[in-house]
Amino acid sequence: MNQFINAKENLVTEAIDGFLRVGKGRLARLDGYPHIKVVVRTDWDKSQVALVSGGGSGHEPAHAGFVGKGMLTAAVCGDVFASPSVDAVLAGILAVTGKAGCLLIVKNYTGDRLNFGLAAERARAFGLQVSMIVVDDDIALPELPQARGVAGTLFVHKIAGALADQGADLATVSQAAKRVVDGVLSIGMSLDTCTVPGSPKENRIEVGKAELGLGIHGESGVEQVDFIGARAAMEMVVERLETHLGNESHVALLNNLGGAMPLEMAVLAEELITSRIGDRIHWMVGPAPMMTSLDMQGFSVSLLPISAKDEASLVSAVAPVAWPGCLPVSEVEVLPLPDGLTPIQPIPSSNAQHAEFIAGCCTLLIDAETDLNALDAKSGDGDTGSTLATAARALNGALDRLPLADLTQLYRAIGLELSQTMGGSSGVLLAIFFSAAGDASASGLDSVGSLKAGLARIQQVGGANPGDRTMIDALLPALTALPSGLEAAAIAAREGADLTATITKAKAGRASYISEDKLAGHNDPGAEAVARLFEHLVSVSG
Amino acid sequence: MNQFINAKENLVTEAIDGFLRVGKGRLARLDGYPHIKVVVRTDWDKSQVALVSGGGSGHEPAHAGFVGKGMLTAAVCGDVFASPSVDAVLAGILAVTGKAGCLLIVKNYTGDRLNFGLAAERARAFGLQVSMIVVDDDIALPELPQARGVAGTLFVHKIAGALADQGADLATVSQAAKRVVDGVLSIGMSLDTCTVPGSPKENRIEVGKAELGLGIHGESGVEQVDFIGARAAMEMVVERLETHLGNESHVALLNNLGGAMPLEMAVLAEELITSRIGDRIHWMVGPAPMMTSLDMQGFSVSLLPISAKDEASLVSAVAPVAWPGCLPVSEVEVLPLPDGLTPIQPIPSSNAQHAEFIAGCCTLLIDAETDLNALDAKSGDGDTGSTLATAARALNGALDRLPLADLTQLYRAIGLELSQTMGGSSGVLLAIFFSAAGDASASGLDSVGSLKAGLARIQQVGGANPGDRTMIDALLPALTALPSGLEAAAIAAREGADLTATITKAKAGRASYISEDKLAGHNDPGAEAVARLFEHLVSVSG
Repeated sequence: MNQFINAKENLVTEAIDGFLRVGKGRLARLDGYPHIKVVVRTDWDKSQVALVSGGGSGHEPAHAGFVGKGMLTAAVCGDVFASPSVDAVLAGILAVTGKAGCLLIVKNYTGDRLNFGLAAERARAFGLQVSMIVVDDDIALPELPQARGVAGTLFVHKIAGALADQGADLATVSQAAKRVVDGVLSIGMSLDTCTVPGSPKENRIEVGKAELGLGIHGESGVEQVDFIGARAAMEMVVERLETHLGNESHVALLNNLGGAMPLEMAVLAEELITSRIGDRIHWMVGPAPMMTSLDMQGFSVSLLPISAKDEASLVSAVAPVAWPGCLPVSEVEVLPLPDGLTPIQPIPSSNAQHAEFIAGCCTLLIDAETDLNALDAKSGDGDTGSTLATAARALNGALDRLPLADLTQLYRAIGLELSQTMGGSSGVLLAIFFSAAGDASASGLDSVGSLKAGLARIQQVGGANPGDRTMIDALLPALTALPSGLEAAAIAAREGADLTATITKAKAGRASYISEDKLAGHNDPGAEAVARLFEHLVSVSG
Repeated sequence: MNQFINAKENLVTEAIDGFLRVGKGRLARLDGYPHIKVVVRTDWDKSQVALVSGGGSGHEPAHAGFVGKGMLTAAVCGDVFASPSVDAVLAGILAVTGKAGCLLIVKNYTGDRLNFGLAAERARAFGLQVSMIVVDDDIALPELPQARGVAGTLFVHKIAGALADQGADLATVSQAAKRVVDGVLSIGMSLDTCTVPGSPKENRIEVGKAELGLGIHGESGVEQVDFIGARAAMEMVVERLETHLGNESHVALLNNLGGAMPLEMAVLAEELITSRIGDRIHWMVGPAPMMTSLDMQGFSVSLLPISAKDEASLVSAVAPVAWPGCLPVSEVEVLPLPDGLTPIQPIPSSNAQHAEFIAGCCTLLIDAETDLNALDAKSGDGDTGSTLATAARALNGALDRLPLADLTQLYRAIGLELSQTMGGSSGVLLAIFFSAAGDASASGLDSVGSLKAGLARIQQVGGANPGDRTMIDALLPALTALPSGLEAAAIAAREGADLTATITKAKAGRASYISEDKLAGHNDPGAEAVARLFEHLVSVSG
């Protein structure tokens, strides 16, 4: 078991209780666990049309997450991916339906259609007005007479919910729901299958492949396609949608199928809006998880042509926090940088020896990227090599702009360059090192003295001392030995760097979060970089 | 590459643009891509204290998702897991800070502390009032002098944000932030590592293990522990928190680290609130992804003692939709089932032969669960075996209550029993089958005639015909052959079931969503179940 559940048999009831306990306040459930799992509004007097939806669980926040003023009145929850029983649906209908009647919103899966349909018949036998709308928004299989209902269902919840909340009668609410179902188009894409609780995960989709046209129950997509990136993926989705798409203004619902990261969803939003149908998308719901398929790393796009009337229904406020709102799509507003950021640039000057020295050091750091990342992975987040290589590339690219002939200005310029291009702690520490060395050089210290002053400043700012398993453990002995020559400095740096492999009690930096046994035997990557730099300087000076 | 991104170099800037484009309307970014990635409020006149936070990306919705009225004024975003540069932070401060000054909210990581700290110094050199609060809420490593800042930071955003929004001065806002930082405790647990874009995923945590006490950058947890379920997992987390916890009323923030399903998070919420510290938790934020670690399947719990003053700041409405609200924790309200659900129970009666017949069929279906699930996995969602086994178990358990001596009432009672206990389409179809058989039997039809009437009714309701690759393909020939004897019926059922393996163009049920090549060679699980039942009847009648 590698999921935060107790037993799959109690998963849904425990989850519903957990959901209800976090005081959404206006929600309750019906008695009748485990067979009857119905979440209902408690701020409800049956005077308006009730909206009842539901289906198998595993699609959270659908369906219970959308129960509340302005959306659903009740959600009838089945077990994971299994339709609720007729009795459960009937209980939901009877619990919330008054004289104004009830609209059942059902996704087009056989089980849901049968259970909701039979429950509707039984409710009608009680004299209740019950309509049922079957959502079939999936366009993945155009030749299928019975298209699936997927995330486009949310539009029905929202638009019918807004009308019901305004007191519209059942015919009006049902008509609006039908108009939405007739207009909405959806299609999904995924990079991985979902993990059904209690079942082994099917590894159907290889790395480098994606499935296009899948439903929300882990069934295979219509086809496997090559996956080469977010842009091409969204283009495929857009291509399928485009053939069905009119030229009017649309609202897009960008649904996270569960396991896509917010970063991925934001990139997909950017790709959708800048795609060739982007000019027809004027409103957006999400990106957000709304109709998920457990933990599936995928997304779906639903498009609905939008009239002025629907616009009001879509943007109105609702109680359920799971509804991310329907917001206008806009250009990215870019504000100018504030004054005071652009520092005075140094006047470039030439010095072939300094240029060669810097370029050599940069090349060494770029070449060491993988090694240093690997070392950092033992003690930190594996980016020291990349951070230093990025700095080296930036410096290499700035060589023409540097005041190479003036060592004082050169130190400061390197510090400035690094502070502008690098993030990460090593970056800013190096920037401080060179800035302070420049200040020291300006005050008349020699080269070694200036570098020592830089070192003293980073010890002060960073709070690290010798023996703390940082680059200081190589840099301090090297600078101390430097008056005796470059070779002595290189030997001292190497000894210092290798000594870090025995320091298993880091007190600063990310290594301090790591347990001792994980650190032993691996040099600190910063110290290793310093040692390699001095060894390089010896080899080229030789 | 198995993530919906284009290139890791552009990931963060594309994601920010995607985020801003979805017309949150009141947000913009500063110029200066790629180095400067700052999201700012545009509905901002600098008359109040500005709140600036940020850090590496990969924690979405933090930090840009919390920019808006009532929370942050600006978010300074670094690359994934890398602190933004001093210049980027400075740009953010300068863009939003007026005479009221600015509070920097920084999580306690060396890079962030250095870059935000130096930017604060540079901003002060411009004559701006800048305070900085360093959040160190992680209790995973109690002996560490510099505890990490994790999801408890959200409390600082919210409480300081509410005060700033009310016009409090910088000293008051900073003091409140310090009070939160002094009081908040957090700890995280995860079942898997996170996937850093562009890097191979480290498979550090085996199935059956969890990591306790991890940060938000993919670094290893303090210890690996055995994972036996959600309850024990939350107990471990609660145990760590409890040693630091006072007896006052607390607010809990239940944070999804990115990859946990909403179902899992709801179960964890249930476990937290019903844990032995649950009586000290009166308010809850989430469960929701707030401070994530990319796609990490984990969670964190943050606890803050709550005063009346903070309560008002926590519950006030804010613009950012990523804030899930702070809601009172309550008991689950359970409403009685509506009238009309409880059907009239049949009067039990005895018939040893019928009892044995039913028990034998039930045992067969229970034994066939795995086989039928496996068949269904080829064409559907792999649950036919479980659905039928569940029905069989329910029937077995209901044997004493059934009117075994009266075939008409027995058919109806089986239908009723199935409609009350089963979800799924096979379940309701079987319920309809037996109910209709009962009606037919009541009208005087013999056993075969009654069963045929049941079959006709499910064809009508389910919309499936012979040749559509459903249980009908075995049941219809079996019932047709039944007048010639059980053995003939079993042979016909088997032929019909085996024929379904050649039907690759399903027109009903979930198999209709599957491409033809995936269906060939596998029997329809419903038809297979029917064939096995008849074969079983032959073997026991023999």
